[in-house]
Amino acid sequence: MDLKKYLKEKKEIIDKALERYLPMEQDNFGIITKAMRYSLFAGGKRVRPILCIAGAEAVGGTGDQVLPVACALELIHTYSLIHDDLPAIDNDDYRRGVPTSHKVFGEAIAILAGDALLTEAFKLMSCPELRKGTSSGRLLEVINIVSHAAGYHGMVRGQVADVLSEDKEVHTDTIEYIHMHKTGALITTSVVSGAILSGRPKAEIASLKSYGQRVGLAFQIADDLLDVEGQSHIMGKGTGSDLKSKKATYVAVIGLNGSREMAKHLISLALDAISSFDQRADPLRAIAHYIIERKY
Amino acid sequence: MDLKKYLKEKKEIIDKALERYLPMEQDNFGIITKAMRYSLFAGGKRVRPILCIAGAEAVGGTGDQVLPVACALELIHTYSLIHDDLPAIDNDDYRRGVPTSHKVFGEAIAILAGDALLTEAFKLMSCPELRKGTSSGRLLEVINIVSHAAGYHGMVRGQVADVLSEDKEVHTDTIEYIHMHKTGALITTSVVSGAILSGRPKAEIASLKSYGQRVGLAFQIADDLLDVEGQSHIMGKGTGSDLKSKKATYVAVIGLNGSREMAKHLISLALDAISSFDQRADPLRAIAHYIIERKY
Repeated sequence: MDLKKYLKEKKEIIDKALERYLPMEQDNFGIITKAMRYSLFAGGKRVRPILCIAGAEAVGGTGDQVLPVACALELIHTYSLIHDDLPAIDNDDYRRGVPTSHKVFGEAIAILAGDALLTEAFKLMSCPELRKGTSSGRLLEVINIVSHAAGYHGMVRGQVADVLSEDKEVHTDTIEYIHMHKTGALITTSVVSGAILSGRPKAEIASLKSYGQRVGLAFQIADDLLDVEGQSHIMGKGTGSDLKSKKATYVAVIGLNGSREMAKHLISLALDAISSFDQRADPLRAIAHYIIERKY
Repeated sequence: MDLKKYLKEKKEIIDKALERYLPMEQDNFGIITKAMRYSLFAGGKRVRPILCIAGAEAVGGTGDQVLPVACALELIHTYSLIHDDLPAIDNDDYRRGVPTSHKVFGEAIAILAGDALLTEAFKLMSCPELRKGTSSGRLLEVINIVSHAAGYHGMVRGQVADVLSEDKEVHTDTIEYIHMHKTGALITTSVVSGAILSGRPKAEIASLKSYGQRVGLAFQIADDLLDVEGQSHIMGKGTGSDLKSKKATYVAVIGLNGSREMAKHLISLALDAISSFDQRADPLRAIAHYIIERKY
């Protein structure tokens, strides 16, 4: 399959939907919408929404069916980036080549824009548009697993572990803990929620969960590798920044080669997990390969 | 009716439920749970959960039926306080007589504890316990109106307006805008969501919405009044702090007497809105009176 074309098509569908769900506003206090949109349209690759759609398609569902949930996942991801970049947390001035939210809008609005994006994600996941085509019970299940993955047993906990590990000697198990929570939980849930909305049996959901966990971890290792190897002008931020700030990364603990091998191994495990799926899972397979081959 | 007894009983039920929904944890990164619990159990009056329960009771429902949603509303309220208190926003060191979250746990953990409480609220509203007793469609409707009220068209927008109005000359309409969004939206939704979960016809919901809007605004005016009149040792924070920081308040614009009259007027309008309800709405009536009579 032509993955490049697939990713481009899906990204366009998602960008259009995000534009529709979060339109510009003319209001005295529309600065909040401006800040939300600034980060939402700052060049994200839409990995989570695409995984949600590909997860749905892999089990016979359609992208249309899951579009609001797919977009909600991108809202949650974007909120987490805005808050992570804050001076009190990672203190990053640039992301994807442009100034971070708090550099443009100030810290107060950046905090509130993150809060608003997170809240809006749940409004999207409960919107009447979705309720028309999907059973309410399934939607509630998805809201439940997404909030679990994003919350203090998932993404937030990973961020806490990351913050507490900074400037400390960390071991592989802590790094795995951080990555599994900070990035892995939401990526796994993206794949799974697409499939749940399409009403699939539990065995298939479990396979997709395994796929998501492995791909999620590989994705983060690839990110760590890119931070060291990537070219600054492609990545849009100073490379090597993780090492400089003594961030807990795989590269720092098991080295470049070890990290590359580990990412490759995880991808082959991810492919194993969905080996019984038919060709409708080809996008998931192609995405797994792409994750360790991408250059930005 | 004996309101004091009613409030005490409901508060105990809510506190017990919150304890059950957010228990202590023994984990390396359990600091996040500690921070969430610190603010959640820092002496809140549980106004929003009690209004949710009273709203359900007023239309023949029960508190048990709505308990997770009632608690979710308190989680959302608590998150908003933690983020509002941050140095970048209101920069408050004390609330209810104890140091604010960022003074105890640092800014990074305070931001993340707020994020986690907000996220957990949606996990509670979609939890299996609720799904057993209530139709999924109604739950989704409640998630939708709560996220609307808490988000960038509701509470967050009120906070943005508040931030942008600081140190500026403001008029009554801006103050009403701030209060209706920052406090009013979530209070209104608290009353309404209890009734929706109890499956009532739209006419009754509309009456409860009017009640909530008026009570919500009166509640905030009463808060502004207490900030000026209240005794520091009862309020647990330095009184007059709003005036000192040039916060937009009713008292600053229409004075003490004007504000008192306005709060009273709003309460009588709130009572009018539910005049056709039977004695099961007595708690809502008593709460309305209490709001302008309370001393802290």
